[in-house]
This record gives sequence, C-alpha cells and structure tokens, in this order.
Amino acid sequence: MSNLPIELSYALDTFYFLMCTVLVMWMAAGFAMLEAGLVRSKNTVEILNKNALLYGIACIAYLLVGYNIMYPADPISPYIPGLEFLLGTDNTTEAVIAGGDDAPYYSSMADFIFQAVFAAATMSIVSGAVAERMRLWPFLIFAVIMVSVIYPVEGYWKWGGGFLDELGFQDFAGSVVVHMAGAAAALAAVILVGPRKGKYGPNGEVRAIPGANLPMATLGMFILWMGWFGFNGGSELKIANVEEANAVAKIFVNTNAAAAAGMVVAALFARALFGKTDLTMTINGALAGLVAITAEPLLPDAGTASLIGAVGGLVVVASVLALDKLKLDDPVGAISVHGAAGIWGIFAVLISNADATFMGQLIGTAVTFAWMFIASFIVLLLIKAVIGLRASEEEEMEGMDVYECGMEAYPEFTSGK
Amino acid sequence: MSNLPIELSYALDTFYFLMCTVLVMWMAAGFAMLEAGLVRSKNTVEILNKNALLYGIACIAYLLVGYNIMYPADPISPYIPGLEFLLGTDNTTEAVIAGGDDAPYYSSMADFIFQAVFAAATMSIVSGAVAERMRLWPFLIFAVIMVSVIYPVEGYWKWGGGFLDELGFQDFAGSVVVHMAGAAAALAAVILVGPRKGKYGPNGEVRAIPGANLPMATLGMFILWMGWFGFNGGSELKIANVEEANAVAKIFVNTNAAAAAGMVVAALFARALFGKTDLTMTINGALAGLVAITAEPLLPDAGTASLIGAVGGLVVVASVLALDKLKLDDPVGAISVHGAAGIWGIFAVLISNADATFMGQLIGTAVTFAWMFIASFIVLLLIKAVIGLRASEEEEMEGMDVYECGMEAYPEFTSGK
Amino acid sequence: MSNLPIELSYALDTFYFLMCTVLVMWMAAGFAMLEAGLVRSKNTVEILNKNALLYGIACIAYLLVGYNIMYPADPISPYIPGLEFLLGTDNTTEAVIAGGDDAPYYSSMADFIFQAVFAAATMSIVSGAVAERMRLWPFLIFAVIMVSVIYPVEGYWKWGGGFLDELGFQDFAGSVVVHMAGAAAALAAVILVGPRKGKYGPNGEVRAIPGANLPMATLGMFILWMGWFGFNGGSELKIANVEEANAVAKIFVNTNAAAAAGMVVAALFARALFGKTDLTMTINGALAGLVAITAEPLLPDAGTASLIGAVGGLVVVASVLALDKLKLDDPVGAISVHGAAGIWGIFAVLISNADATFMGQLIGTAVTFAWMFIASFIVLLLIKAVIGLRASEEEEMEGMDVYECGMEAYPEFTSGK
Repeated sequence: MSNLPIELSYALDTFYFLMCTVLVMWMAAGFAMLEAGLVRSKNTVEILNKNALLYGIACIAYLLVGYNIMYPADPISPYIPGLEFLLGTDNTTEAVIAGGDDAPYYSSMADFIFQAVFAAATMSIVSGAVAERMRLWPFLIFAVIMVSVIYPVEGYWKWGGGFLDELGFQDFAGSVVVHMAGAAAALAAVILVGPRKGKYGPNGEVRAIPGANLPMATLGMFILWMGWFGFNGGSELKIANVEEANAVAKIFVNTNAAAAAGMVVAALFARALFGKTDLTMTINGALAGLVAITAEPLLPDAGTASLIGAVGGLVVVASVLALDKLKLDDPVGAISVHGAAGIWGIFAVLISNADATFMGQLIGTAVTFAWMFIASFIVLLLIKAVIGLRASEEEEMEGMDVYECGMEAYPEFTSGK
Repeated sequence: MSNLPIELSYALDTFYFLMCTVLVMWMAAGFAMLEAGLVRSKNTVEILNKNALLYGIACIAYLLVGYNIMYPADPISPYIPGLEFLLGTDNTTEAVIAGGDDAPYYSSMADFIFQAVFAAATMSIVSGAVAERMRLWPFLIFAVIMVSVIYPVEGYWKWGGGFLDELGFQDFAGSVVVHMAGAAAALAAVILVGPRKGKYGPNGEVRAIPGANLPMATLGMFILWMGWFGFNGGSELKIANVEEANAVAKIFVNTNAAAAAGMVVAALFARALFGKTDLTMTINGALAGLVAITAEPLLPDAGTASLIGAVGGLVVVASVLALDKLKLDDPVGAISVHGAAGIWGIFAVLISNADATFMGQLIGTAVTFAWMFIASFIVLLLIKAVIGLRASEEEEMEGMDVYECGMEAYPEFTSGK
Repeated sequence: MSNLPIELSYALDTFYFLMCTVLVMWMAAGFAMLEAGLVRSKNTVEILNKNALLYGIACIAYLLVGYNIMYPADPISPYIPGLEFLLGTDNTTEAVIAGGDDAPYYSSMADFIFQAVFAAATMSIVSGAVAERMRLWPFLIFAVIMVSVIYPVEGYWKWGGGFLDELGFQDFAGSVVVHMAGAAAALAAVILVGPRKGKYGPNGEVRAIPGANLPMATLGMFILWMGWFGFNGGSELKIANVEEANAVAKIFVNTNAAAAAGMVVAALFARALFGKTDLTMTINGALAGLVAITAEPLLPDAGTASLIGAVGGLVVVASVLALDKLKLDDPVGAISVHGAAGIWGIFAVLISNADATFMGQLIGTAVTFAWMFIASFIVLLLIKAVIGLRASEEEEMEGMDVYECGMEAYPEFTSGK
C-alpha cells in the first residue's frame, strides 16, 4: 500500500493525457465540419472523405513509423532520427515505483496516442487549403508520406530532442511545429494545384465563393476551440502535483482568453474594413488566437495572453486579404490561420519566455518552413507527375462529389440547380 | 514524498474542475446550434455571430472585472461587492501542504475559468430570446455590461457570500442565479424589442415561424445535455474523497434522470395537446428538466430527480403557450426553459433540502429577478436611445444576415427564394 | 490523513468512470446525427425524435428496473435474474477504507450511469435500421420493454455473472452483448416492418435512397468514434494504478487503430467495387472497426488491433451488399455495422485472448442472438397486433415528419419540392 501514491500519480497523469487525447482527436471533427461548411455543396462529400480518411491514415502511418521517427529510441544525429516500426511495451510497475529522475510517470501508450492525434491535426490543416480542386486519392497519398516522414522529421528536430531543440527554439505546443508546419505544406500544395476556377478574374478581381453551410463551419470552430484545451493543456505533459496542476489550469485560462480576444478583434476589424461582421472572420479570428497562444500558453498572464490572441485576430484578417492579392486561393483560410498566426505566435514567445531568443525563434521557424515547404513540394510534384493532383475542368465544374464519391452531400436541398 | 497524497488531491480536484470547464464551455456551442437551428435561414449567420462573439466577450469581460465583482477579495457590504481587475496569483505548494480548514484544494485559475464559462452561459440565454430582430452590436454591447456587472452582482449576492446567501437562499448550480437570471434579462430585452413581424396576427393569432434546421437544434440539445454534467457536476467543487466522489456521481445520475424525464413528459404532453410529437417540445423538455434539477441535483434520490425533471417538462410546454398568449415572442423558448423551469426548480429544492425555506427561496428568486430585469431594462433602454436595438423593417424582411454580416448561412439551399 | 491515498484511488476511479459516461452519453448524439444525415429530409424530424426520446426512455427504464435485472443483488439462477427497482445507497467511506478484495473502489452511482448509457446505445442501434417507415410511438413502446427487460436479461447472462459468463464467453465491452444484441433486435424489427416503398424494384433492383445531409452523418461518425474511447476505455472499470492505467491507455490506442483501419480499408474496398469513394462506406467502415475491436480491445497489440479493424471494414461493406440482396432494408447499415462486424469481433477475440474458446464464443453469440431476436420479434408482433408498427402508405409517401411530428426538418430548403 505504501506505493499507492506513486501509482496514483502515474494513473492521474495517464488519465489526464488520455482525456486530452480525446479532446485533440475531436479536433478532427472540428476541421471536418469547418471545411465542410466553408466549401460549396458540390465538393462537400469529397472534403468530408478527405478529413475522415486523412485522420485514419495519419493514425496508421504514425503508428507504423511516424512516432518512432519523431521520438527515436536511438537517434542517428540531431538532424537525422532513426527508423523503427510499431510500438514497444509499456512501463512496468517496478520501473515506476523505483522512481528516480528518469522514472516514467505516465503510460507510453498514452504518450503515443496523444502524439498521434497531433500528427493528424497537422495534416488536417492541408485539406482545407486545397479544397474544391485537389483530387481525393493524390491528397491521401500525400497524407501517408507527410505523416510517416515529413512531419515526424521536423517534429524530431524540436520535440524529439533534435537540433532545433538544442538551439533553444521555444514552441510549447506547436504554433510552428504543428500549425505553421501544416500551413507550409498547404502552401506548397496550393501553389502546385492553383486556384479554383473563377476565383480570380482576368483583371485581378477576387470573387467570393461562399461556403454552403455556415452553422456547420461555426460548429467546427467551437469543436476546435474545445479540443484546443487538450492540445495546449496536454502539452504540459503532467498534472499530478500542485505546481503542474496550476500550470495546466493557467494554460486553460490563457488558451481561452487568446481565442476570445482573437475572435472579438477579428470581428471588429472585419466590421471596420467591410462594414459587415463577416462570420468567417469571427471564426478564423478565434482560431488565429488559438494558434498564436499555442507557442507559449503557460508563461504570460491572462491579460498578455489576450493581447497575443488579439494580434492573432488582426494578423489573420490581414493575411486572408494578402493571400488573395497574391492569388493564393485558400478556401478556408488555413494558411492564414495556421501559418500567419503561427508565425506571430512563435515570436510572441519573446514577450514572456526569457529562454527564447529572437534568433532561435527565427531559425526554428525558417528551418521548419523550409523543410515542410520543400519536402512537401517535391513529394507533391512527384505525385502530380505520376497520377496528377487536380480534378479535371469538368469535374471541378460539376463538383467533385459526384465524380469522386458518387453521391451528393445534400441531394434534396440543391437538386433543382 | 510524504506530501504526495495532498498534492495529488489538489491535482485531482483541479483536473476535475478543468474537465467540467471544458464541458460547460462546450455549452456555448450547444446554445449556438440550438438557436441556429430554430431561427429562419435568413437570420442564421447573425445568430451564429451573436453566440460566438458573446462567448468571447463574456470571457474577456469576466476576466477583466466580472470575476472580481462576483467573488470579491474584500467586499464592501453584503449588498455591494468590491471592484478589482484581472486575476491574482495561484496557490503555492506550501499553502496547499500546510493544510488546515481554509487551505486551498484546487487551482484558483481553474476556479476562474469554471466561473467564466458560467457567466457566458447566462448571456447565451438572452441571444435566443431576441433572435431574428435585435441587432448584433447593440446586443454585444449589452453583453459587455451584463457579464461585467449585472450578472456578477447578483452572483455575488448568492455565490460570493452576499446577502442572499446569508439569508439561506439555496441554489446549488444556478436554476435561479444563472438560468432564471438569464431569462429575466431576456424578458427585459423581449419587451423592449417587441415581437418579430408577423408572429402575432391582428386578431390575436399566433403564427408558427418554423426553424430552418432541426437536426442542428437537436444537436444543440445533446451538446447542452452533455455540458450540463460539467455544469452541475462541477458545482460540487470537489471530488477527491469517497464522499465527494459519491456526491458527484449522484449529481450525474440526477442530472441525467431529470433531463430524461423532462424530455419524455414534454413530448407526451405536446402529443396530448397537439396530436403531434413536436420536436421543439422534446428538446425544450429535456432542457427544462436540466434547468429544474440544477438548483438541487445532489440531495434528491434518482426517482425524485426524475419527478422534478418531469414537472419541468410540463412547465415548459405550458409556459411556451402562455408567453405566446401574452405576445412575448421568444423564438427558441429561452424564457420558458430557463425562467419558468428555473423558478420551478428553485422551489423544488424544498422537497429534498431541509435547509431551504419557502421564504428564502421566494426572496432569492424575487430579488434576483427584480435586479436582473430592472438593471437589464435600464441598460437596454440606454442602448436603444443611443444606437437603437432593433433591425429596420426592411432588414427584418430581407434577413439580418445580409445586412449585418454580408453573407447567407446556406446560400445554395435557399437561393431560389 | 493516512486514508487519503485509498480515498483518492476511489475518487480517481469514480471520476474516470464519470468521464467515460459523458463520452458514452455523447454517443446518443452520434447516433442521432448519423441517422438524421442518412435518411431523407421528410423523415428527419421523426428520426431525431426517436433518437432523443429513446435515450430518455432508456435512462428511465434502466433506472427503474433494467439495471437491477442486469446486475441483480440476489439472482434467482444463472439463467434468471431477480427483480428489484430503483437504486440503493452508495458505498460508505468506512467500507472503502476497510479494504479487502471485495471492497468497493468506485461509486456505485457511477457504475449505474455508465451501464445506463450502454443500455441506451443498444437501443440506438435499432432506430436506424427501421428508419423512414416504423412509427414513432410503437418504436418507443418497444424501447421501454427492450431496455427494461430484453437487453438486461442477456446482459445479466454475461456481465451480471449469469450462465454465459460461467461458460467462458469473452466479450470485453460488448461486440455481442451490446452491438450484435442491438442488431438482432433491429433485424427482427426490419423483418416485421418490411422495406421502404421503392427500395427494391419488381425485378430485384436495389435502388439507392440517398441521405439528405452527409456532413451531419459524418459528424455522427466522429461523435461515435470519440464516445467509443469511453465505451471501451471505461469497460476496463479501473484506472487507478500503473497496470490499470497502462491497460486503459492501450485500449485507447487499439480502439483508435481499429477504427482507423476499418475506415481506410472500407473506403478502399468500396472504391475497388464501385469506382467511387462512397462516403457512407467510409463512415460505416470506421464504425465497423470500432465494433470489431470492442470484444477485446486490451490484449492485442496495436498492429493486430488494426488488422481486426481492417477486416471489420471489409465485413461491413460485404454485409451491406448482402442484406440488400436479401431485401432486408436497413437505411443506415446498422445491422451490418453492429451485427456483422460484432460477430467478426467476437471471434477475433480468439486471436489474442487465450481464455476464449471457439465454442464459448459461438454459444455466447448464438444464445444472445436467439434471445434478442426472438424476444424482440414477439414483443414487436404484439405491438403490431395492437397498434401497428408501420406508417401508412400515404404517410410514408408524404414523409413521417408532417404526420407524426407536425413539422419539417428543413422547411426552407425543401419547400419547393
């Protein structure tokens, strides 16, 4: 019985990890609903398939090899992780009780699944950006490689103890490691597939292509917000003592405050710019606030966290407008939310974390961006050469749902059109 | 290591609080989906914006000042709380371990965010009642004042240790302090903005204005039901011993039983009255059962909790019909669900809580109602005088979405109309 | 203070149970959204009412009598449980601290509500199979009897310590006890109510009847997946030591892996068969993977769990096609997902659980099927004789929503048709 407290500590930390996993897994639904709500009805089944299947593929690929690349037992160098497959055994009761500074304090299975849902989230960022024109299976093939290798390698560099970590790059829960990384891959894909037909007029006009189901998109935002408590809260990795419990609670407060401020400020900014309270900006403002605080949700006080989120809300609106000027067509604003706000977030770490340096943050961001963008670009180029990336003009006109999936998302609501 | 159990206790209570916070935060999505499903498509973007932005504003306003008003460190009197801003520091490990009757047993940051999502829930009640005609930004300005001051003051009177608490008023998780309080503010707003055009005919006819998306509304009910486990379960404030764990479990059982009974009874009642099983009554019956049990979810046995919920189901159907007779137009039934069932719930406390008195419950309810109604009425009147509350006739006819938000919720499903 | 660890253990196990309960309760919303998305708009309000009300009825019926039948204090024989009503009192602190092998280690109230949401899940399986033609109240009357008696009796045989448990039948979280049981009842109902008008042509053609809202159906899948972490994870019944925490974490990993593999394989299989990536097969593949791993989510390693899920994905596609050949009309594929994949899952236990025998699994499955099918058939036959089961031809043509519920699910999207 005298070992009960140490066993309880392990159990509580494991349970906390598993609950955070459930919340981050739930973000897959958030991305699916957000993207399904923001595309046109004729491409909705396809985006649902993409979101569901990428989650499944990510879980399998990360189990098979990705996790071992990102957290290698025996890394080759700070730049090159090792290569292993599947999972080992979990910690023994003896090892836990023996204690010591390196004693495991939560289940390694819980660690795996928490990391796996992060990998899936990274890939979810891409699907929205290439919606309505990138074909389903080329996208899913890219997902296999992205989650097996591309993401785990850069993840290793920071979170697996690689050279970016040694360099002092600070990214608590992944403003750059997850979010900007996903956005960089998305940018490569957007450049390669090109904009949707009709998005940009011959004289530089930007044409709005409204989403088909805005309550669904709003639901997606709320799901993501909810899931983010697990995303940031779980990244503390421990809760089972006073200090850690306080830390997780503070992360919850800051995460929520940043999202709230990002949302309100983006809505106000959009209203000032357009004279209308654009709901898609409200949504993306909240998500940008969440992305921005993700790099450092622990150290700032709640007021500072609100300011970091608020600036995220400004950044995302500006970025959405700027990308359209550059004719980079991102139907759901994924690159702006996860990329632009992610970069803001990584530098906002400098406000509250004394261990962060401008150069460290810059190098970490630049290296991650370069790796994710270039590796994704090359892989996508190969897929393009072999089987193509983009739906045919006819498919795009008629909608991808009927061609790729053989069905319509809302057959009774749109049948007369 | 000898302090590990006390630290674990703190960590478990904090974690329980945070998980309940996630569930209550999720209720914001529930309100959003419920209301978005029950309004017409032309006003859907606007109601989504209201629900999202009110949540954000509530979190900011409560952080900035509301929390300190509701739980003042140094109250001026049992009637008047103090005025402070932002949050202090969290408990130290030393203070926790030192123990004693007043030792903190969970993170004060967790306490703040749990209370913050309650404040947001109170405000969410208002948005449904004034849907489809109250303009967005006047509503949001009201939200700022409501969550900064109006709600925290009455919250202080009961939960912050003010005069209603001293008087023996019993309201466990807020049938009156949250739900009826929100409904009282909603009633003030409904009276001031008036009914939707066409709701009431010249000869007293009541015209049904069907909601555009009932699956969405049903989803909202399920989300709220789920979130209510956190709302009532978290209000026990502690789980980390046998007695408290049993208490939280019993609250879960009773909360679920009351919702189930309220739903089934409301559906049967509606079927008896109209010959049809009206889904909106099924939904509101469940919510009424939840509101009714909220005042005392711990003491009744599960059978009694079911009866309390069942009566809640009858009350809400009767109240919906009565409000329409009074030409008080509440598109989602918020005043009936949260107000009428809340009042039933506060008196149902007398069944199982020997500490409650009829006079205590009556005074608590009357004072809360009077404060919320009058304060809201005055603030809304001021907003009306300065910028107006209601959409113009043309805006209301065409839909608020295009005028206020520049977009449609379902552009492809309704475009031919 | 010396009893604090044992109290914390109890509190942690109770809290874990309650969080799993919330997740399984949430599956009610998953079933509702899945089914609402897969039926036609004219029968959507009715299916929402069915799903909401069956959940409420299940909770009440299981509280009143079902729980006591399934877990009798004093069983009459291994075949016949006893009959008692409502719930007893919870464990005392003394009993917990006294310890010993039979000492309670979590709240019996938490046990009740966890079991109650399982009972509701069993009933949810039926509603989808008889969608679009079985009338609302006959269905709900069947729900009362099913959850009061039929399901608890077979639940007793296995989980309550009855003869199937004594026989060595192995079913961890209910591939057969819950899922195939529900599917067997559904099959009886499908045979008795017959297929939807127009589903099968005079020359044996099978006509697709597309669902009205596929994003909703996809949301339902994600909700069910999320909830399944509680369904399988909670079935471990304990988390508060190293070994149990590892077990729960492994169950999470395996549950997720099986779902992922089932989804991806079903999508690939459907694409190979039809040339299109049928989203309904993607969805049902994930659910089949979940059902298949439910019988034994603990013992297989993650690779094996993936294979079990993958075969589940193949089974569900084949079963959907086979049922249509047999003219058994199941609009959402519930019998295939929960029945066919459930049977696969129960035999897949033989792969990793040395205590399982082929004969034990066969007898357990056959007995459960026979009981659920025959008992349900008889009860439904009685209901049919007294008040009828099926909507009239006119009601079916016009849609059940207007006749039974007096409203449309999407009045503005389908009004022109």
